[in-house]
Amino acid sequence: MAVYTDITEGALRGFLEAYDIGRLTAYKGIAEGVENSNFLLHTTEGPFILTLYEKRVNAADLPFFLGLMEHLAARGLSCPLPLKRRDGALLGELAGRPAAIITFLEGIWLRQPETIHCAELGRTLAALHRAGEGFSLTRPNALSVGGWRPLWARARDRADEIAPGLRDGIDRELAFLEQCWPDGLPAGIIHADLFPDNVFFIGDALTGLIDFYFACNDFLAYDVAICLNAWCFDDKTGIYNGDKGRAFLAAYQAERPLDERERAALPLLARGSALRFFLTRAYDWLTTPAGALVVKKDPLEYWRKLRFHQTIEDARGYGLEI
Amino acid sequence: MAVYTDITEGALRGFLEAYDIGRLTAYKGIAEGVENSNFLLHTTEGPFILTLYEKRVNAADLPFFLGLMEHLAARGLSCPLPLKRRDGALLGELAGRPAAIITFLEGIWLRQPETIHCAELGRTLAALHRAGEGFSLTRPNALSVGGWRPLWARARDRADEIAPGLRDGIDRELAFLEQCWPDGLPAGIIHADLFPDNVFFIGDALTGLIDFYFACNDFLAYDVAICLNAWCFDDKTGIYNGDKGRAFLAAYQAERPLDERERAALPLLARGSALRFFLTRAYDWLTTPAGALVVKKDPLEYWRKLRFHQTIEDARGYGLEI
Repeated sequence: MAVYTDITEGALRGFLEAYDIGRLTAYKGIAEGVENSNFLLHTTEGPFILTLYEKRVNAADLPFFLGLMEHLAARGLSCPLPLKRRDGALLGELAGRPAAIITFLEGIWLRQPETIHCAELGRTLAALHRAGEGFSLTRPNALSVGGWRPLWARARDRADEIAPGLRDGIDRELAFLEQCWPDGLPAGIIHADLFPDNVFFIGDALTGLIDFYFACNDFLAYDVAICLNAWCFDDKTGIYNGDKGRAFLAAYQAERPLDERERAALPLLARGSALRFFLTRAYDWLTTPAGALVVKKDPLEYWRKLRFHQTIEDARGYGLEI
Repeated sequence: MAVYTDITEGALRGFLEAYDIGRLTAYKGIAEGVENSNFLLHTTEGPFILTLYEKRVNAADLPFFLGLMEHLAARGLSCPLPLKRRDGALLGELAGRPAAIITFLEGIWLRQPETIHCAELGRTLAALHRAGEGFSLTRPNALSVGGWRPLWARARDRADEIAPGLRDGIDRELAFLEQCWPDGLPAGIIHADLFPDNVFFIGDALTGLIDFYFACNDFLAYDVAICLNAWCFDDKTGIYNGDKGRAFLAAYQAERPLDERERAALPLLARGSALRFFLTRAYDWLTTPAGALVVKKDPLEYWRKLRFHQTIEDARGYGLEI
């Protein structure tokens, strides 16, 4: 939630000359997106989003991300469409950073999604997985099983500062997952970060998905597992909500049925994705200065979710109907 | 530059039911305004700004601020207009805070204003001072001469951490200003914080003023002095720019000529307003934690400006033509 880089009107005017988007009438930094600086532009043609890619994003990945949005939008998924410059490029440079303009998507992200929204999410996640087929670029998932041990190495020594016993608990879980992680499941483009703040609604209708900057190639069911973690636990109690899980999974399966191996792997994938968010949060938790204005996300939320998944023996425990 | 409070879609929907502004299609926290939380709303009727007033704003002052914007807009000044709720009130409550919706003003604030913009500013500042006449509420200026000593008491003991010798320098300046501060100058509504981020332009034309949350009753020429400090020094070199000062003052005087006493007092008012911004910045500088993501504004910028004003013997030194 931050604007890291401000831009001068002169630099912005120069940047916009490469585009056909009318005359600029307003621009404001917006408090969305953790990795990049985002501005809402108003021009005589309408609203747009300008993104400046900060250091945490690898510039070599940008053609993948922008090309993917173009591919998905062309296949009917509602997501931001990168604007082409007059020279045909999707990417320019502003304030020393790679920068792109994308269409503005109307809609609201839900701070408190309900069961009906989980169903919308399931339907749209399956649509995303279908729409990703045929995309020509690939990007490995640096935050899947092979990436966890190096992440853990950055937090392990101080993990018991977060909660006593955490170091041993994660050591065991990581060793287990490295040994049992499935292979050969159906794979393709996944969003990999489909939390509520990346899904827009108007009323109860899902209007679009944003923020494809973790998208990559991996098991499609890993994306399903991420959504179970991100959408189907009650915020206040931390308890898994079977209604939400059932609605989400049924809507997903109506568009793209999970095969037998995916169903069998679901508890393991849910453990793995809980571990993935635990690990990045634990690192941020231990390294963010106490006075900083960023909201520190609690890593223990994901440790608790992980322990819940350890108790699930098969996917029916999530409300999956077979 | 911060969103301090987030709001849920349910709370926002409930809040909006009191207004006739169409259907909500998007809302985003925007990185503008230091004291409050601001959201850009899109509805089927257009864009609006929603402001939640945080603790630094005294709720008892809100009727003054909102009423003032209404008064100024009715008298032709381009500024945000607070929307009336169905019950006629300008103020409601959201997330436990007083909250208001104001119209969205198109325009861009200039990170690098030039001479032509200073002229536009002068003309509009005079128009603001005229438009403020007849406003029925009053609010004393807590950040004029009577307020400086208590502010200084919060920073004085540690002032030499900012720069050696600062404590004695400010002690002397404060004693001098307390003794010589003018009285009986023409007074009325002043903006009191008309920095470039509160003045919008499209191209070179000024399109409006925002952020009236420091507005109060004081000498009109104090507002002129604040603008000299905020607009007429070159950012990079810190040197006073005579062209900007001349353009600003000439345009102001074309609409509202300064009288003889105001002209004579201008160097003193400029010292006082430089001290005022020095003092709030010094306090923030000394109390903001090192790791915080807020941009700490350099108090020494205003100490240097103050020392420049100490060298000015009469208002012609600013480019004022008599």
